[in-house]
Amino acid sequence: MTIYETRRAKLIEYLKQNDIRVAMIHDPENIFYYTGFLSDPHERFMAYFIDVEKDEAYFFVPALDKDAAALASQLDNIVPISDDQLPFEVVKTHMPTLSGTIGIEARAVNYERYLLLIETFKGVAVENIQPFINDERKRKSAEEIEKLREALRIIEQVLEEGLKKVYIGMTELELVSEFEMLMRKFGADGPSFSTIVLTGEKAALPHGSPGERTMQKGDFLLIDFGVIKDGYCSDITRTFIIGEASEEQRERYNIVKASNEAGIKAVRANAPLKSFDSAARQVIADAGYNEYFNNRVGHGLGIGLHEEPSVHGNNEEIAQSGYVFTIEPGIYIPEWGGIRIEDTVYINENGECEVLSSFPTELTVLCQS
Amino acid sequence: MTIYETRRAKLIEYLKQNDIRVAMIHDPENIFYYTGFLSDPHERFMAYFIDVEKDEAYFFVPALDKDAAALASQLDNIVPISDDQLPFEVVKTHMPTLSGTIGIEARAVNYERYLLLIETFKGVAVENIQPFINDERKRKSAEEIEKLREALRIIEQVLEEGLKKVYIGMTELELVSEFEMLMRKFGADGPSFSTIVLTGEKAALPHGSPGERTMQKGDFLLIDFGVIKDGYCSDITRTFIIGEASEEQRERYNIVKASNEAGIKAVRANAPLKSFDSAARQVIADAGYNEYFNNRVGHGLGIGLHEEPSVHGNNEEIAQSGYVFTIEPGIYIPEWGGIRIEDTVYINENGECEVLSSFPTELTVLCQS
Repeated sequence: MTIYETRRAKLIEYLKQNDIRVAMIHDPENIFYYTGFLSDPHERFMAYFIDVEKDEAYFFVPALDKDAAALASQLDNIVPISDDQLPFEVVKTHMPTLSGTIGIEARAVNYERYLLLIETFKGVAVENIQPFINDERKRKSAEEIEKLREALRIIEQVLEEGLKKVYIGMTELELVSEFEMLMRKFGADGPSFSTIVLTGEKAALPHGSPGERTMQKGDFLLIDFGVIKDGYCSDITRTFIIGEASEEQRERYNIVKASNEAGIKAVRANAPLKSFDSAARQVIADAGYNEYFNNRVGHGLGIGLHEEPSVHGNNEEIAQSGYVFTIEPGIYIPEWGGIRIEDTVYINENGECEVLSSFPTELTVLCQS
Repeated sequence: MTIYETRRAKLIEYLKQNDIRVAMIHDPENIFYYTGFLSDPHERFMAYFIDVEKDEAYFFVPALDKDAAALASQLDNIVPISDDQLPFEVVKTHMPTLSGTIGIEARAVNYERYLLLIETFKGVAVENIQPFINDERKRKSAEEIEKLREALRIIEQVLEEGLKKVYIGMTELELVSEFEMLMRKFGADGPSFSTIVLTGEKAALPHGSPGERTMQKGDFLLIDFGVIKDGYCSDITRTFIIGEASEEQRERYNIVKASNEAGIKAVRANAPLKSFDSAARQVIADAGYNEYFNNRVGHGLGIGLHEEPSVHGNNEEIAQSGYVFTIEPGIYIPEWGGIRIEDTVYINENGECEVLSSFPTELTVLCQS
């Protein structure tokens, strides 16, 4: 059995146990998880239907992806949908007797497609199978951990090589270009999100955009980026100082570093996710910077860049073996600058925390003359 | 009045005329269209609510985007939502009396959020305002055309400069890196999608991924890419030959070129969109390659990379002044290769077609020794 067949078998078992006759898998990430075919169809329709009762499945794909889908998924019954067809009419042609309860991913199916679904197949009931799939994806297998390690290995290599190119006067965008070239060079399939390089006071913007600002002595240099490799994402943040660090910069940097370490130290199976957030947050609060850390400490990572679990102060969920997520506390002070240190952790089979990222977190001053 | 105020005024007028009390603008592209704030909140909640009855509006944004949203939108009532809050509970705190009919974008709101909306505000009715907004966005203003021209100008400059770097033995990914560096250099905010560079028989895959294949004499070189600049996207495809073109390649190239020209020639206001598709398709069919052109001839382009109108053979919609879309016929022959030529056209105020892209389409052989 391939990993995809194993995953599908578990899904089918779940559907049967819950009297859900048909599953419509619609989220491109979930389609990759269950079929091995990774593709962003943009606004086109793509869905993998499993009819448990009839023991048959159809994979509906945009016509232009037909061959690629067949190659990657090795599935039978791949049905192309051309741009001038109405997707649910094509589904109906192949599954005319579809009825009963249909499981959909409530987060992936938009309201328009939900309406089309229940209008095309009158009388069907809809059930949300997103929580089941999220749970499945949350517990990573050994193979998935290897893929995540590889995506991290690449981005850390990119970081190491890219830092050698940093010079006083370099623009943020120049460094972005350098990094993106290195991503390709070291074998990434692409960036996992738009590379963030922020300098000086711009580092205070958790989601700022790199621009023409140049690196100057005394600046922060915040780098947050990642790659996709074989369908899995990496995501890492490090903050550096250019030329010379002030006492204030060192002090605040070390608070964030201690917060990151406290968060990681708290991670283990059978503890609530919120406790990892609190552990990291407490360090920042104790130092008097609570108001400058206003986002969750981390997010799940896998096929998706941001997936479950969400590691925030109100998440009572109990962490389990197989979970992978980031720990990324930060201090962001408007007009002054910001510091974020982001690692990726994995709760292994023994319920212990393994840090998958390995790039050093000690304060590093670049371009010292 | 800013363009955003003008657009909001039209939306409010529409809501009033249709007895829709509240609009929830949720699609990040539409939020940019109506507020000037461009941001991808990923899985976080972002929505701009307008209550027509109370004459008030709230812009709910992820906490970490609060300052950026305030700066870009210049709106009052910006409400941050932190990661540990339930978004609709925050909405309810600020809009406790929300009732009546709520207009939502059926394509942007997922089924989960739709359920949360109607559970949080019991008794509300939901109406789809997506068609109205799509219509608004479809008719581009003069300012928008200028932005689209600028995004195209950048990508054509990238293409021109990047082609100078092509050599026999270069990998697809090396050329991708070169292009992405040039995008930054020439002022793009980023690529508008993952750059496609395909060589040889891989050019037959309309959505293939660039890899380690190297360019060899006699290869096709298909390049499909674009940039985002100030929130607007460009998208262009050209196909080249490396070293030396065979007679068969020349012949088929010229069929696609003639198809592209026939499509463009058909474009005008007051004609059905499907007629532009047919005009281009007819040329390919007449030459006997109909089965090798299995996608629509074009898509709308603007804030979104793929937006309305969709230019396919069943779209009866009548084209209007202001529409911007691509004309991109192709011939894709498995194992042999593929040719696509993509331009962007605009139906101007006089109802005539203007081609916004200007890169030559004559067959060009690169790396001739």
